[in-house]
Amino acid sequence: MAYHTSTEERPIDIVNIPALEPIVKAKMNKGAFGYLAGGAESEITLRENVTSFEHKKILPRVLRNVEKPDMSTELFGIHIDAPIIAAPIAAHGLVHEQAEKDTVQGVGAAGSIFSLSTYGNATVDEVAQASPDTAKFFQLYMSKDDDFNHWILDMAVNDGYKAIILTADSTLGGYRESDIMNNFAFPLPMKNLAAWAAKTAGPDSGEGEGIAAIYAKAKQKLSLADIKAIKDYTHLPVIVKGVQSPLDIEDLLNAGADGIWVSNHGGRQIDGAPGSFDTLAEIAAVVAKRVPVIFDSGVRRGQHIFKALASGADIVAIGRPMLWGLSLGGVQGVTDVYNHFKKELTIDMQLAGTQTIADVKNTVLADAK
Amino acid sequence: MAYHTSTEERPIDIVNIPALEPIVKAKMNKGAFGYLAGGAESEITLRENVTSFEHKKILPRVLRNVEKPDMSTELFGIHIDAPIIAAPIAAHGLVHEQAEKDTVQGVGAAGSIFSLSTYGNATVDEVAQASPDTAKFFQLYMSKDDDFNHWILDMAVNDGYKAIILTADSTLGGYRESDIMNNFAFPLPMKNLAAWAAKTAGPDSGEGEGIAAIYAKAKQKLSLADIKAIKDYTHLPVIVKGVQSPLDIEDLLNAGADGIWVSNHGGRQIDGAPGSFDTLAEIAAVVAKRVPVIFDSGVRRGQHIFKALASGADIVAIGRPMLWGLSLGGVQGVTDVYNHFKKELTIDMQLAGTQTIADVKNTVLADAK
Amino acid sequence: MAYHTSTEERPIDIVNIPALEPIVKAKMNKGAFGYLAGGAESEITLRENVTSFEHKKILPRVLRNVEKPDMSTELFGIHIDAPIIAAPIAAHGLVHEQAEKDTVQGVGAAGSIFSLSTYGNATVDEVAQASPDTAKFFQLYMSKDDDFNHWILDMAVNDGYKAIILTADSTLGGYRESDIMNNFAFPLPMKNLAAWAAKTAGPDSGEGEGIAAIYAKAKQKLSLADIKAIKDYTHLPVIVKGVQSPLDIEDLLNAGADGIWVSNHGGRQIDGAPGSFDTLAEIAAVVAKRVPVIFDSGVRRGQHIFKALASGADIVAIGRPMLWGLSLGGVQGVTDVYNHFKKELTIDMQLAGTQTIADVKNTVLADAK
Amino acid sequence: MAYHTSTEERPIDIVNIPALEPIVKAKMNKGAFGYLAGGAESEITLRENVTSFEHKKILPRVLRNVEKPDMSTELFGIHIDAPIIAAPIAAHGLVHEQAEKDTVQGVGAAGSIFSLSTYGNATVDEVAQASPDTAKFFQLYMSKDDDFNHWILDMAVNDGYKAIILTADSTLGGYRESDIMNNFAFPLPMKNLAAWAAKTAGPDSGEGEGIAAIYAKAKQKLSLADIKAIKDYTHLPVIVKGVQSPLDIEDLLNAGADGIWVSNHGGRQIDGAPGSFDTLAEIAAVVAKRVPVIFDSGVRRGQHIFKALASGADIVAIGRPMLWGLSLGGVQGVTDVYNHFKKELTIDMQLAGTQTIADVKNTVLADAK
Repeated sequence: MAYHTSTEERPIDIVNIPALEPIVKAKMNKGAFGYLAGGAESEITLRENVTSFEHKKILPRVLRNVEKPDMSTELFGIHIDAPIIAAPIAAHGLVHEQAEKDTVQGVGAAGSIFSLSTYGNATVDEVAQASPDTAKFFQLYMSKDDDFNHWILDMAVNDGYKAIILTADSTLGGYRESDIMNNFAFPLPMKNLAAWAAKTAGPDSGEGEGIAAIYAKAKQKLSLADIKAIKDYTHLPVIVKGVQSPLDIEDLLNAGADGIWVSNHGGRQIDGAPGSFDTLAEIAAVVAKRVPVIFDSGVRRGQHIFKALASGADIVAIGRPMLWGLSLGGVQGVTDVYNHFKKELTIDMQLAGTQTIADVKNTVLADAK
Repeated sequence: MAYHTSTEERPIDIVNIPALEPIVKAKMNKGAFGYLAGGAESEITLRENVTSFEHKKILPRVLRNVEKPDMSTELFGIHIDAPIIAAPIAAHGLVHEQAEKDTVQGVGAAGSIFSLSTYGNATVDEVAQASPDTAKFFQLYMSKDDDFNHWILDMAVNDGYKAIILTADSTLGGYRESDIMNNFAFPLPMKNLAAWAAKTAGPDSGEGEGIAAIYAKAKQKLSLADIKAIKDYTHLPVIVKGVQSPLDIEDLLNAGADGIWVSNHGGRQIDGAPGSFDTLAEIAAVVAKRVPVIFDSGVRRGQHIFKALASGADIVAIGRPMLWGLSLGGVQGVTDVYNHFKKELTIDMQLAGTQTIADVKNTVLADAK
Repeated sequence: MAYHTSTEERPIDIVNIPALEPIVKAKMNKGAFGYLAGGAESEITLRENVTSFEHKKILPRVLRNVEKPDMSTELFGIHIDAPIIAAPIAAHGLVHEQAEKDTVQGVGAAGSIFSLSTYGNATVDEVAQASPDTAKFFQLYMSKDDDFNHWILDMAVNDGYKAIILTADSTLGGYRESDIMNNFAFPLPMKNLAAWAAKTAGPDSGEGEGIAAIYAKAKQKLSLADIKAIKDYTHLPVIVKGVQSPLDIEDLLNAGADGIWVSNHGGRQIDGAPGSFDTLAEIAAVVAKRVPVIFDSGVRRGQHIFKALASGADIVAIGRPMLWGLSLGGVQGVTDVYNHFKKELTIDMQLAGTQTIADVKNTVLADAK
Repeated sequence: MAYHTSTEERPIDIVNIPALEPIVKAKMNKGAFGYLAGGAESEITLRENVTSFEHKKILPRVLRNVEKPDMSTELFGIHIDAPIIAAPIAAHGLVHEQAEKDTVQGVGAAGSIFSLSTYGNATVDEVAQASPDTAKFFQLYMSKDDDFNHWILDMAVNDGYKAIILTADSTLGGYRESDIMNNFAFPLPMKNLAAWAAKTAGPDSGEGEGIAAIYAKAKQKLSLADIKAIKDYTHLPVIVKGVQSPLDIEDLLNAGADGIWVSNHGGRQIDGAPGSFDTLAEIAAVVAKRVPVIFDSGVRRGQHIFKALASGADIVAIGRPMLWGLSLGGVQGVTDVYNHFKKELTIDMQLAGTQTIADVKNTVLADAK
């Protein structure tokens, strides 16, 4: 049976980001929505991703000569309009027929960076062709088969992707009960896997399988040496994604990591971990500005971005909200979501007395009482 | 379509202050009520304004020779019957046809000080004429146009207003979702703006616009130098309103501030800030009695006033409750609200073993466990 | 209209103490129940009286040679079967026709001490006659009229009451909204007041008045000197009731207090005070065993008694639960309530590895995490 | 009337462990379910047994060369497939006709250790015969009659049980209100008691009595000397079960305890104690690896096992979940429950970067914020 999904291409009304989720839920396939929304086990970490932002409070400064705050910043020399980039997410085709081909355009129109997952519903090449001018990162789920790894990294390098995101937190699938209860399997092929399968006797496309089965076929035994191997092969910066412990930082930097991506995978991998924001400040303190810190998981408000930056993040990534925009409005919906985050962030910056992103980073937050 | 609102002039029954809000809600225009009641974004700060008072507890003292506690105090040499004054609020006309002309009389009858907003529905002159004997402060939202600033400050000085409140926290409107969802615009002209518009090519009256649009037309780039400029121009004490960070205090005092008004604008500006009470003690400690500390946001009980004074406030201001009284009873309703606060405060002072406001200020609160 | 109330005299079934309250509520006059159950203002302190016990946890000890724990203890040389005595409460006639005459018998049958309020519905003499062998304390609400004070203290001394409880926390009535909303007034005379009124031109009996009016007619300006005056006049131990601040202790002991009664009056006086249990340990530490510490407010479980003793109380008093027993079963109901507390306490003592009340007092509680 | 219970023997579907409880509840006798599910008094400790695991958080490590984690460990030289053993529970016959005879087989099939209660519905011998190859511990509730103690310990020794669990926390029954409200009495004989009663004039079989009555007939006055007496008599390791206070540890080890079993008896004995997990780390720190630490109470997730091991436990025991499996699927249901815990634990170990149980134990947890 063909999988039917959104074909919308239109601007969307946004009062706030969280309000988009029930609208998306009402129109989406139940299993696919469960996959998108769900987290691991009891979903405590999933919920704490949002609530943990309340553990720190903004103390606005006054009479600080602020007007029209400047949200622009850069990452690996790439100028971006605001410190908000796309988190890599598998299978955008679940929410929109155009899948990553739309998302990348929407992200580009917002002046930001797109991150493509190995498990996308468009290939590395297709995404590059859909939006040549958008800066792009490629997220690698390492295969047990180095031929696959080399093939897909070659594509990314050749297509001008600017960095490799090494997924470190997903050597198995988290225990996601929505998927089990819905008996969810991907209704569409993961196009990179399909292209490789067409070319070789490699793993199949993922169509008809759940995420746990797909992760289990990838490489479990990831090691610090993988960082250098990817760097040497691609000559691109390697960002390690899925960092939650400050104890990992020295090892990762010694192993050559060019960026630290603090994330608990949107609460989808190990339940019982802290809300992602609760881990950020301590990790950033150990990184100590040696490499950029990117942060995701639970960002739903401009103030969340503000608090993450003030806690040591250089860049914040958004995941589910971007797909809500994709579902409701295609290219324009994605851009609208970015613009809404920017609207809230610019208000927060103005009201907090911060003219630049550097000012935000220098802000001291208060502990909640 | 004409805007219909209360014309009540009568005493009101008050069991407690929070119980007034649903009564007001039931009789008010939905958009106007949403404007009055709402806060920014998720309204977390709005709610914490009230709940934060529970973070500190009163430990009553016994056998302390207390009888008929004396609530009187003073501010800038003005005697007041109790340490409770009016917070400045825009557009009292939303809740009562007589608008600020009634409120000022009700406040005066309660032996307190009235604060008029630039964005009132009565002019500086009209308020002065409505209650010549009531002590009054004028709250300035600075315009980009210094001619307007001078014109309105001249009026305040000439009409005998006793202090200027410089609004420091509102260089843009907070992101208030009630107003967006209700598509709320002010149904009545802001009379000072209207008078200026009639006289010049200045900004229009605000009628038909939302608060964000109005704030955006005012001056964004407020600076410490504005304090001295207003002082020099008016020779009146200048209170900086909207202070939330102890880091601002030295700068503000060095810049000439004659009073520090701790407030988060009733949770209406930046969500994700602490409950206002949570910021008070640390700010007051830095002020260290060099100038008066005024406190608002979330005050709904006599015990809240007690706790604020014991945390370093010299004076507490009330906002929404005063307008609930105005809505339900006009002049008398306003006075009744003040009297109810005084009734609760006098009981608390007696039971806590405190004879005077100085005793209250010297009380040591306990941290909640 | 005559006030109808319980005339029950029977044993009652008790699964747990809190379960009695809704049964009593269903059969009682609404205003009278509201008076009995209600607290001040928002009733936050009232609720925290019960929940504050969860701030400390029992860590049971094992293999400690415990069997049939001994709950007996003493206060001012009076042997009691368990460290549980009657808190003084006004107007037992609200819940039972026999009023304090039944309660004193039920308390005596439980091997405990009864405390009679000045504002009882039976006189000092009547209570003494109803149960001559029960140990009794008399709780004094001081009058502005020392003749009244001397007259009623003479009765207590002559009737063999063993101690005077000086009410220190009630120089005015707390702001109790149930009473206001129910327009509650006492339907029956306070018999001591009535006897004095019959004899003199003293204050009337309280019938038809609310508690705030009655308190307001008593003496507000209580002082430390009142302790010694009562001691000198009665030659009885004087316990100061209503202590919540450790800062008061040295003054009270220097002024001659023979006992410290930690209480927030069941949450009925000043809302915004801590749960009573939260104040106990610090106060007891300052008392440092110089005089007995009695504790009340919120005791509903045997484990509450255990925790209070382990936090420095020598004796725990129960209030509302005793009246629930009175309402449901008269004399026997009161005894049954005491026996239920003893049943739970003896289980707790056995399971916690504590043979005696001294062992319980030496137990170290853990902070809740 | 005959007691009807499950006779199921089949595999069961498990999405998660907590989801089994309502299914069991729907099919079970109300009183028996209440006995199984209920805790003491207000059941605060019962609830905190599960929620206390949220007080600590897992910070997963990345790129640590982990693949196919090894969950195997050992206890007293007994190899087990995972650090999960059976907690001793009375009266498995309440949930399944085959009672402990099924449970022991299911546990054995899972490669774990079974613990038989004195109050089982199968004798020491019957359990041994039902599954000779399964490693077994025997839980002793000491009788006042040493002849009984010797007789039952002889059986355990002769049947090859590997350790004696001395129940230290149950010298009386906790105050369990479900049992009181349901008027619950055991519908079936406790077979060890019945065998002894048949042989002697000893205590009867427990049939028709509640747990409190049964506990009350056992020995109350347990002492440290009992440890050595059992060791000398059996020459088996003695584990003291029901430890909650770090203050007990030195005494227990000095008295010869070969294992410390941290437990609050599933919240069934003393309410007002901490969640069991809240007591673990401090106790384990005092034990300091001198003897094994076993932990139970509230374990419902693989992550709970992970957190317990990382807090100092060597082995985790499961209670109610095992009986839910027994109820729903007999032998296979028990094994399925173990396998589900192992499935979650292995995912957690892989995702947390831990290859072995030793790695898990060396993991540093974060305090929840």
